[in-house]
Amino acid sequence: MTRVLIAYASDHGTTRQVAQAVTDGADGFEGCRAEARDVETLRSDDLRDVDALVLGAPVHMGSCHWAMKQFIDRILGPLWLTSEFEGRVGALFATGSGRGGAGAGAELNMLSMLAVLAELGMILVPLPHRTAGYDSGGLHWGPFFRTAVKGGRPVLLNADLTVARRHGLHVARVTRQIGLIEFSDS
Amino acid sequence: MTRVLIAYASDHGTTRQVAQAVTDGADGFEGCRAEARDVETLRSDDLRDVDALVLGAPVHMGSCHWAMKQFIDRILGPLWLTSEFEGRVGALFATGSGRGGAGAGAELNMLSMLAVLAELGMILVPLPHRTAGYDSGGLHWGPFFRTAVKGGRPVLLNADLTVARRHGLHVARVTRQIGLIEFSDS
Amino acid sequence: MTRVLIAYASDHGTTRQVAQAVTDGADGFEGCRAEARDVETLRSDDLRDVDALVLGAPVHMGSCHWAMKQFIDRILGPLWLTSEFEGRVGALFATGSGRGGAGAGAELNMLSMLAVLAELGMILVPLPHRTAGYDSGGLHWGPFFRTAVKGGRPVLLNADLTVARRHGLHVARVTRQIGLIEFSDS
Amino acid sequence: MTRVLIAYASDHGTTRQVAQAVTDGADGFEGCRAEARDVETLRSDDLRDVDALVLGAPVHMGSCHWAMKQFIDRILGPLWLTSEFEGRVGALFATGSGRGGAGAGAELNMLSMLAVLAELGMILVPLPHRTAGYDSGGLHWGPFFRTAVKGGRPVLLNADLTVARRHGLHVARVTRQIGLIEFSDS
Repeated sequence: MTRVLIAYASDHGTTRQVAQAVTDGADGFEGCRAEARDVETLRSDDLRDVDALVLGAPVHMGSCHWAMKQFIDRILGPLWLTSEFEGRVGALFATGSGRGGAGAGAELNMLSMLAVLAELGMILVPLPHRTAGYDSGGLHWGPFFRTAVKGGRPVLLNADLTVARRHGLHVARVTRQIGLIEFSDS
Repeated sequence: MTRVLIAYASDHGTTRQVAQAVTDGADGFEGCRAEARDVETLRSDDLRDVDALVLGAPVHMGSCHWAMKQFIDRILGPLWLTSEFEGRVGALFATGSGRGGAGAGAELNMLSMLAVLAELGMILVPLPHRTAGYDSGGLHWGPFFRTAVKGGRPVLLNADLTVARRHGLHVARVTRQIGLIEFSDS
Repeated sequence: MTRVLIAYASDHGTTRQVAQAVTDGADGFEGCRAEARDVETLRSDDLRDVDALVLGAPVHMGSCHWAMKQFIDRILGPLWLTSEFEGRVGALFATGSGRGGAGAGAELNMLSMLAVLAELGMILVPLPHRTAGYDSGGLHWGPFFRTAVKGGRPVLLNADLTVARRHGLHVARVTRQIGLIEFSDS
Repeated sequence: MTRVLIAYASDHGTTRQVAQAVTDGADGFEGCRAEARDVETLRSDDLRDVDALVLGAPVHMGSCHWAMKQFIDRILGPLWLTSEFEGRVGALFATGSGRGGAGAGAELNMLSMLAVLAELGMILVPLPHRTAGYDSGGLHWGPFFRTAVKGGRPVLLNADLTVARRHGLHVARVTRQIGLIEFSDS
């Protein structure tokens, strides 16, 4: 069985919604099993058998939510030492208030998450622009969903999560097709 | 007299429109004289007496328009050697089709331009979020305007260029107030 | 009196050493008073009267140390809402093991910190390349010092902190010269 | 046959040397054929049958060499429209004077090149840190080689190009193993 883990940080539940859509897209594809988990609940042991890791976080002050950063430093950091994630598959997504139509730091947020996947030696899956739903939630690094405060709480501006599900499907497909790359002589 | 130069790359005229709005905002403020120039027409001599430099370019394939990059490498590069721009004022703006609501690379585009201003040792002026018009064209690094193809040619999605004019005004204000920083013992 | 606050995250004391050197460079310049503080000890009230803010953190897994990110999200975030840091002066520095001679993520680390300074609307001071000591610890975004493990604990590879002291001096000088920019009509 | 194209920009031949080492690492691996080409000589037709594309460029003023950027905008840009590179394999490397031990913009240079590979929907191969030679020329995004002027001309500071050859080998291995990903329903 191929395992895809979607690890997200979420303050008000909007990022969790997107995480669930990514999970739905990957789960069930050719024997893949996908699961969404809040980074604050994840321990090192939860990562052991993961074939693909998808990180998702809201933009905070122009870069990555600190809880995601804490997860990266404390839980993913030790995997750098052992190189055990080398050749596995990585991807990401983000949310944010996106004031001004330029993502409000969506890109630096995503690049911070992409950096750890690269540090771990993972094969990276971006978001092709002809993916269904791209125009309402796409960036080449991964899906990005805008949030807005309505009725006193943050909600997703766009309820159509197609692009997030397709992203999950892409990750599952690449993971199945690539198997585990062995850089035996890396 | 304080001179503000707005140097832009533009394929179809939309970036030139924004450049002109930035220029209008700076020109005339407390004895400032501002001018917009296409980077392809600029020579080293045109930069000699400039007190503030504002760079603007469209996003191309997730980063900075090559003509801006050529200007940076060929015309601004030699100013790095002489350090003559050290302590002057720098800022930027961008345009782009912005598919997906996350800027489509607006941020890396802007950071590429910001990098050269930092390399030259310039004092950098970002875009405060309470600037009028921010919601229709703002990113913290500078104004960003989305374009779209209408009637066969690219146009600005948003005709309100207030935030660009205010950005020009901010740059003029900082330049006047700061004078020229002398890092004599840098 | 002009106040410069150097806010740092440090695991083993090397970043604290650099923070102290930046502080030494700023403290005493034309009536400036500079202080270095661990981000974990800082509360919102400590930031109220600050004229310049310098952020410094080690690279962790290709981006910014999570404790700095937590400080940014929790303590600096609320200052975004009030815009009270608009027009003040900001700068940064970093440390890191720097494997491979390319900074090992020094730049994304610095850009994450630069992003919040830009979000707050602060005037940004980079590191001019002719600053004394640049070759042993410079990047255009700010000083960067490599660390290495010796005798079981991380130490600075280079004991010459001149470039950090000069960076502090530059920040003090700009802050004194610029006073407080009033974007009254921003 | 699997084709790997290494497309580089080079002013003085140092980046070409690294490009050749990447090529040597990929060429001959399980029926792979690799070729290094200066971006200024490449036309759209040269890219048609390429299974993997590796981009390499020197840092110029804190970001990507303009000739690489021109190649990206003019030759790679049209491939974005047709999506024909979706699911192929991409990677990168860089060179630079690297003043200060933090890469002098190596990372933004690499991210600019990574952005176009992501825009094209390519599967991205980073550089695992246990790759032989990483300490003398590695960054997680790809190999980075420092240059210095000796005897009046730029040379590679480090003559050991092992990490570049291994990078080429990794790219070839991933390309062979992954075949062509069909995001048929993307």
